[in-house]
Amino acid sequence: MKFSLAIHGGAGTRRREAMTAKDEAGYRAGLQRALLSGYGVLKEGGSALEAVTRAVMALEDDRHFNAGRGAVYTAAGTHEMDAAVMEGRSRQAGAVAAIMGPRNPVLAARAVMERSENVLLVGEGAMAFCREQELVFEDAEYFGTPERLEALHAELERRRRKGADTRDDAARHGTVGAVARDGAGHLAAATSTGGMTGKRPGRVGDCPVFGAGTWADENCAVSATGHGEIFIRYAAAHEIAARMRLGKQSFAAATEAVVLELGTRGGSGGLIGVDATGAVALPFNCAGMYRGRIDADGIAWTGIYRESLEAHELSAA
Amino acid sequence: MKFSLAIHGGAGTRRREAMTAKDEAGYRAGLQRALLSGYGVLKEGGSALEAVTRAVMALEDDRHFNAGRGAVYTAAGTHEMDAAVMEGRSRQAGAVAAIMGPRNPVLAARAVMERSENVLLVGEGAMAFCREQELVFEDAEYFGTPERLEALHAELERRRRKGADTRDDAARHGTVGAVARDGAGHLAAATSTGGMTGKRPGRVGDCPVFGAGTWADENCAVSATGHGEIFIRYAAAHEIAARMRLGKQSFAAATEAVVLELGTRGGSGGLIGVDATGAVALPFNCAGMYRGRIDADGIAWTGIYRESLEAHELSAA
Repeated sequence: MKFSLAIHGGAGTRRREAMTAKDEAGYRAGLQRALLSGYGVLKEGGSALEAVTRAVMALEDDRHFNAGRGAVYTAAGTHEMDAAVMEGRSRQAGAVAAIMGPRNPVLAARAVMERSENVLLVGEGAMAFCREQELVFEDAEYFGTPERLEALHAELERRRRKGADTRDDAARHGTVGAVARDGAGHLAAATSTGGMTGKRPGRVGDCPVFGAGTWADENCAVSATGHGEIFIRYAAAHEIAARMRLGKQSFAAATEAVVLELGTRGGSGGLIGVDATGAVALPFNCAGMYRGRIDADGIAWTGIYRESLEAHELSAA
Repeated sequence: MKFSLAIHGGAGTRRREAMTAKDEAGYRAGLQRALLSGYGVLKEGGSALEAVTRAVMALEDDRHFNAGRGAVYTAAGTHEMDAAVMEGRSRQAGAVAAIMGPRNPVLAARAVMERSENVLLVGEGAMAFCREQELVFEDAEYFGTPERLEALHAELERRRRKGADTRDDAARHGTVGAVARDGAGHLAAATSTGGMTGKRPGRVGDCPVFGAGTWADENCAVSATGHGEIFIRYAAAHEIAARMRLGKQSFAAATEAVVLELGTRGGSGGLIGVDATGAVALPFNCAGMYRGRIDADGIAWTGIYRESLEAHELSAA
């Protein structure tokens, strides 16, 4: 039973010099928890869809990452979250955009996929649907953190001064995502994000745009993170699927090439992917990407910057 | 100077037996006006981007078509419109979703593309942006028509009775769109829609999902119309571009094959496309699609059902 799971907690990362050992341990622990959540599903014979949902929920619940709890603030001081989920074999898909309330936006996306006739619901209408579906809601205080609020104030102050945008990538954008191949050979992808600090209310990035930030079919599943506008304009995730299927490129070559090309076009970021054999790719074109992978041997591998992944023994974390 | 323009006013059409000669003349006149709007731009050496914008504006202003004036009603009795525009050479793109107010949603999409750093804005945030940009607004009465309201009441009554959905395609979905190649060889696409009659508020279809309902790159420009959820799950428009670029399929073969395949997957509808040579394709897999084309000879061709297009001499219509 060859299964595998990969996750990301956003690209880019904090600048290395601003990362304390304690911070780093926090990020790695969060990645590990998410890997083990998904691993638990796959090990019991669960579906790729359920595994990516659980992994993303763990990242949404962790305030280190910009999704669910810990989501960044819009220019208006509010939260607006987007999430998407897609299953490869059936091509079933669901997404929400510009919502605030559901504790786990990925569950909102999954409800759209499984309990509506639609694929994408946005704003108030999406929230009304989530209430009908009796998803767990939280108030704004749950999602906010002092660090994210400070980042917003710094950004608004910069705009007032018309200063150059010297923020590190982590302050600009952040996303979480997961891709998996389950023991039955099915693929799935999920992505969730709070967007960009100080974004215009109503702004939606690549996460819920299927084919851009999230995609799954028979050949691969992809979840992207980065400068969403560019990822949309190059249909990043579907481009990888198309290069494999139509261009006969290998999974490794296609993922690597697309991420490099996005970088040359102003699309800083990265992505995670898994193919039908369970092979995983985690390319990025910026300083770092919070990322991890695990397969049937139960060893969780995590990475932040360009160095090799670190192994963590399976634990009950 | 080889330029060309194609438009659609939605697939499917009204059932043939329900179409009076007067109705048909109205649809054809609307298509002609849109063709001539875009033609006027291209003939003067204007850009494909401007031509598709003008053609879509003409369709939005015509209450026969489900976009702008004449947009269908949501289940809540409101209007929620989506629009998108994309330019092929630059891959610049802009879209709005779930908005009510701007008289021409395609101008809202264009403003997102040209006057924001974003690609997709939704809901209240999108409307606030449109007000900042001083777009012309209209109230709900402007958009509504008695026929659309009647269609909503019939649909809500059907749901109350839990009756089978026997509506013709035209009552289910409708969209307008345009694609063009200008004299300089650049391509552009635009799409605009009121969505589906009785849709859930917040529901967004394929129109503003780049790569699904709207796409333009160096090789082709595509605008789709049909069952948007399916078009999203198969990345319909980007799939055509990918088959041409990576699969070495001809433009005609790729457009035809993708529309046929969508039909076998429950994706009733059609699309219009133009390639880098100015060749046009208008395939659909349902009973009909309001459609038209024009090139430098100034003859406007329009069609509704499966028969050949009808020629209309150039007029000052």
